[in-house]
Amino acid sequence: MSQDKTLNRQILLASRPQGEPSSQNFILREQQLPTAAELAEGQVLIRNHFLSLDPYMRGRMNDGKSYAAPQPLGEVMLGGTAGEVVASRNANFTVGDKVVGMGGWQEYFLVDATQRGVLQKVDTTHIPLSAYLGAVGMPGVTAWYGLVKIINPKAGETVVVSAASGAVGSVVGQLAKARGARAVGLAGGADKCRYVVEELGFDACIDYKQHPDLRSLSAALKAACPDGIDGHFENVGGMILDAVMLRANAFSRVAMCGMISGYNGEPIPLAAPQLILSNRMKVEGFIVSEHMDVWPEALKELGGLVASGKLKFRESVAQGIAAAPEAFLGLLKGRNFGKQLVKLV
Amino acid sequence: MSQDKTLNRQILLASRPQGEPSSQNFILREQQLPTAAELAEGQVLIRNHFLSLDPYMRGRMNDGKSYAAPQPLGEVMLGGTAGEVVASRNANFTVGDKVVGMGGWQEYFLVDATQRGVLQKVDTTHIPLSAYLGAVGMPGVTAWYGLVKIINPKAGETVVVSAASGAVGSVVGQLAKARGARAVGLAGGADKCRYVVEELGFDACIDYKQHPDLRSLSAALKAACPDGIDGHFENVGGMILDAVMLRANAFSRVAMCGMISGYNGEPIPLAAPQLILSNRMKVEGFIVSEHMDVWPEALKELGGLVASGKLKFRESVAQGIAAAPEAFLGLLKGRNFGKQLVKLV
Repeated sequence: MSQDKTLNRQILLASRPQGEPSSQNFILREQQLPTAAELAEGQVLIRNHFLSLDPYMRGRMNDGKSYAAPQPLGEVMLGGTAGEVVASRNANFTVGDKVVGMGGWQEYFLVDATQRGVLQKVDTTHIPLSAYLGAVGMPGVTAWYGLVKIINPKAGETVVVSAASGAVGSVVGQLAKARGARAVGLAGGADKCRYVVEELGFDACIDYKQHPDLRSLSAALKAACPDGIDGHFENVGGMILDAVMLRANAFSRVAMCGMISGYNGEPIPLAAPQLILSNRMKVEGFIVSEHMDVWPEALKELGGLVASGKLKFRESVAQGIAAAPEAFLGLLKGRNFGKQLVKLV
Repeated sequence: MSQDKTLNRQILLASRPQGEPSSQNFILREQQLPTAAELAEGQVLIRNHFLSLDPYMRGRMNDGKSYAAPQPLGEVMLGGTAGEVVASRNANFTVGDKVVGMGGWQEYFLVDATQRGVLQKVDTTHIPLSAYLGAVGMPGVTAWYGLVKIINPKAGETVVVSAASGAVGSVVGQLAKARGARAVGLAGGADKCRYVVEELGFDACIDYKQHPDLRSLSAALKAACPDGIDGHFENVGGMILDAVMLRANAFSRVAMCGMISGYNGEPIPLAAPQLILSNRMKVEGFIVSEHMDVWPEALKELGGLVASGKLKFRESVAQGIAAAPEAFLGLLKGRNFGKQLVKLV
């Protein structure tokens, strides 16, 4: 980069949403970056190429008890990024290196890379850079953990996943298929369902928008899962989880990964928890960042599958940092189709 | 026994309850028993001394899908019994042997004891016969499985159990204490709570009848569990489970053993299943009869603790087979105090 001052555009959390968030909760700020010569020893400056938008961010916008600290007001929104080193005073990173990290909703990421784990170099020879924010990143490992460590499907079992065309759900179903299980998705709309079956290779996909009540959705699940449901990967919650539980087999496992239907504070009671007992189910919530021990194994499988073209994924790409808030609000409403990214270059 | 014909009084299921069961659902029948000389090869005739009444029996009175076959209409109610061999044409059993089995709601139990596992000889030198239906029987192993295999408390953790003065709950808390955990019970009434703390040695017990709403019960749990709840053994469900979940710690475990609050078909929704995710909880249902592999280990610990007086229990004893239906209806309403038995001799 030149020695001229460069502007870094950032999105900050301006206020906490009451219920459904809006673009008013965010604000764009421009900040001057240091020049290469001004970097402190150990620092690396990255130009972010892609910003990852993920449902978990909605939870962090709230104040109050949760598994993660709230996103601070007036600070850059947290988020995963993939980019290229443009200046470095750190022996481990060279200009041109492709890296991923928690760079936040901004165009440039200035970080002290002497802290272990804050920046990972990635190889883009066989895997596109953006995939490190999706199938070969946090969403992929999330899918892997819930499927492998909680659901652990046997060949011939049936695995259901909600938000099946999304960054996590699409990987869950493909990993289930790779293990010989029947994969059934739930997605919103005929296009997404067609993609889930025809492109991702799921055995069936139910358009939940065609099933506005529990009875109808349960009947659709019965048709798609003639042998019942042995494993369920939950990204949505609410009526979808109720309907799945009505079709759950004895000793079935539910990996609770997300409850996006309740992220704005709506009550989402579970109608019949007694089914957990009568079906001897295991229902387990998890946060993938608390299971760092499995990441190498998971990334090895996921990276291999993506590099060989066996694991497919799709991206919704918004353009420019200013578009991030609207893209995020759309993600919460299911308007994305596949992994939601913001392209910053 | 004499060669005279002996009458065997039995309680049959006459009709399936619609909602709350009543004495009208049962009928008493008298049947003639064979004489000792009339036994077939391999058969054993037992005089039942005690009949065990347990909440699971309510579920079996219903028709429809469950983990166990429904109790057939017009047949002797199923149930565990402890008694004494009064006639035998089986080399493994001798008149005078004390035995336990699924003898049913009747005074005598005629069984082909060549079938493996239908009849177990028990030693009453240090353990009273009735305890084999409680703390050293199915309820005890139920407590042991849920506590040891699902909750698995570490020293210093807090374990909560509902129906804490009952056959299962009383053992859960004492086993938790033996493992260095804090044990907090929920029970109905001051007498039961006093017993749970003063006799059984729990650290605290909450009289749920004093807390008719979620807010009040949750506040009582907060006071009794200042460090939150790490493990919960659920016998009741409904508002109790909701209140416990509001105080659940990260990585807490819920063993779902019974949902007696919903046994008559009332809806018992779980208010906030998203807590399973945000607290990374594990909620697991189980049926102890599906884990026969752990029975020897569990019974060894339970028998040792009862024989040495370290594991305390209490019994509610109804007298005579004709009293069984009313005693069972009382059990479902929590009128028992400790293990509910019917004494038949």
